[in-house]
Amino acid sequence: MKNANKKIKPEVLGLKEYALQPHRASIKINQNENPWDAPDRIKSETLKRIEARQWSRYPDFVAFDLHAKLARFADWTPDGMIAGNGSNELIQALLMVTIGPGKRVLICEPTFALYRQITTVLGGEIISAPVKKDFGFDAHAISDAMRMFNPVVTIICSPNNPTGQVIDAEALSSILRQTSGLVVIDEAYHEFADQSVVPCLRDHENLIVLRTFSKAMALAGLRVGYLLAAPDLTAEIKKAVLPYNLNAFSQAAAEVAIELYETDLKPLVKRIVAERERVFSELQNIAGLTPVRSRANFMIVHSVIKPQVVFEELLRRDILIRDVSSYPMLADYFRLSMGRPDENEKVLAGLREIFESAATASTN
Amino acid sequence: MKNANKKIKPEVLGLKEYALQPHRASIKINQNENPWDAPDRIKSETLKRIEARQWSRYPDFVAFDLHAKLARFADWTPDGMIAGNGSNELIQALLMVTIGPGKRVLICEPTFALYRQITTVLGGEIISAPVKKDFGFDAHAISDAMRMFNPVVTIICSPNNPTGQVIDAEALSSILRQTSGLVVIDEAYHEFADQSVVPCLRDHENLIVLRTFSKAMALAGLRVGYLLAAPDLTAEIKKAVLPYNLNAFSQAAAEVAIELYETDLKPLVKRIVAERERVFSELQNIAGLTPVRSRANFMIVHSVIKPQVVFEELLRRDILIRDVSSYPMLADYFRLSMGRPDENEKVLAGLREIFESAATASTN
Repeated sequence: MKNANKKIKPEVLGLKEYALQPHRASIKINQNENPWDAPDRIKSETLKRIEARQWSRYPDFVAFDLHAKLARFADWTPDGMIAGNGSNELIQALLMVTIGPGKRVLICEPTFALYRQITTVLGGEIISAPVKKDFGFDAHAISDAMRMFNPVVTIICSPNNPTGQVIDAEALSSILRQTSGLVVIDEAYHEFADQSVVPCLRDHENLIVLRTFSKAMALAGLRVGYLLAAPDLTAEIKKAVLPYNLNAFSQAAAEVAIELYETDLKPLVKRIVAERERVFSELQNIAGLTPVRSRANFMIVHSVIKPQVVFEELLRRDILIRDVSSYPMLADYFRLSMGRPDENEKVLAGLREIFESAATASTN
Repeated sequence: MKNANKKIKPEVLGLKEYALQPHRASIKINQNENPWDAPDRIKSETLKRIEARQWSRYPDFVAFDLHAKLARFADWTPDGMIAGNGSNELIQALLMVTIGPGKRVLICEPTFALYRQITTVLGGEIISAPVKKDFGFDAHAISDAMRMFNPVVTIICSPNNPTGQVIDAEALSSILRQTSGLVVIDEAYHEFADQSVVPCLRDHENLIVLRTFSKAMALAGLRVGYLLAAPDLTAEIKKAVLPYNLNAFSQAAAEVAIELYETDLKPLVKRIVAERERVFSELQNIAGLTPVRSRANFMIVHSVIKPQVVFEELLRRDILIRDVSSYPMLADYFRLSMGRPDENEKVLAGLREIFESAATASTN
């Protein structure tokens, strides 16, 4: 170890960088993005507003306009709202003001890898409550873990990435009442489930909701997320949010996307949900594959062929999926998100080819 | 205190939010921005590249193209480079991987307030070595503090915000050789001093340099900063940098700004430096004001009238300066950055008016 690295905290030195192989393919269904680009009206209106602005000037210290629009959009109060450079930045801010050595964060794995990464960097301890065999959230396991470990923060991704499962309202209420800790519901994919826990904010001052513009809102390139919580709690989390955290362009794009959501984005969400149901049925008809029903814009699929092999075979066909076999419980699974209908046809055709030739090979 | 806030760390509860009053004025010289907008060629080329891109797709996991361009621009290696959402994000990442309870950060105050804020949130301890009476860095005070407190990280802003002083190469070398800790030089304003410590990176694996696109590069609205350090150290800091931290638009703008720096931005830097020297001389001729020589695009000014009053009086004249009187050692100072020449004329006229009428009042 080089001398300078002796100043790095040991828990960081032991950590692997969160990284993704930079593969490229024409059909890209590995990051749960919206397969359509942001609609033209959103792009042109955003560009108009950006062009009119002085680029040399800082964004507003607090994004008042965006917060006001988000508040109406999400039906919550502007002073209980923080917009950020992606929701990742906001979960990081929350963990910065709560977690340090000796503090525990409860997560339900398999789930989004970043919760564990940030907690570890901050010197906190991860407690992992496994999900059920069918990948549904296990309210009893969560309760037991809460009683036993008294976590400062519990993070539940709903719909969960990568499994697509949603936590039901009843289980959530019981969890919220039981713990004195904070409970984060990461709703990155809520539009595809047509279900949200935001109405619970009124009755639970320990609930925090995270959302993003990177999925249904079709703005992954712009990195916008937001956090909703009780105003008192929001004020504390803001202390770890860096000033001018959201650049002026992304603010403009987010405002326009909100204004045009109903007319220009919601129809795309409906098509993605319809595709999810269609692709699910088609995958059920491919011998060797078992898709898991999902409420998000992606699903995991059990595969009798090693996921790494399926990944490579699809990549040869110019299709990029996510190999999630290194996640707990998912050794035999891959994940794919919904492409446009024509893309999904090619994905299904590719998978049929791979699994039929495997079936033929094993019969011979 | 509400129940949920009991989960917030006490050091955070005790902290005031870093905030700035949202005053507005036609002449805005309170944030050390470039008073000219980003040049037209930079804006139009950036918009062209943004328009051609799919907004619904994430930026590259690592900004390879931007890192390669930054490496050539700054004469350092691409694997010793991290681009970020403003340099604030990068100092935060560095402190996240090094600082926690019991760990010390040395700063030289008065300086940029965020170093203290982030360290405190992370549970670390700030050691403050004062600058000299003339606001120059005090190499002896720094050495003494290093011996006594053994800081894990030392942060020096050079040119310093808000005083405008630069640390000289000799003092820095001796500091770098003396400490086993990390030394950060925040070069947000280096273009105006025409001086950089980047050449020292080759010989000092414990040196970290921060830079920004928010000042000379005229892109404060886009939030781009970068960090330069030894590749091994950079790899550890990256573990606390969130994936996709820099949005695709800001990446594009930064790349274009680098490409056109020599032709389109450097001439503006020269004009700002010339204005700084001119404004300094003019301020010396106003009775009651004593400007402090600066190497940045701003300066602090000693005032016989209370800085809050000067602030209010200028605001009435549609001019926004920064009242820095709450900083250590600066109870009688305000800060102003260089506007365009016509703006600076109005600022000088406003100050002459305020100080002449005060002189008249006190004579009567």
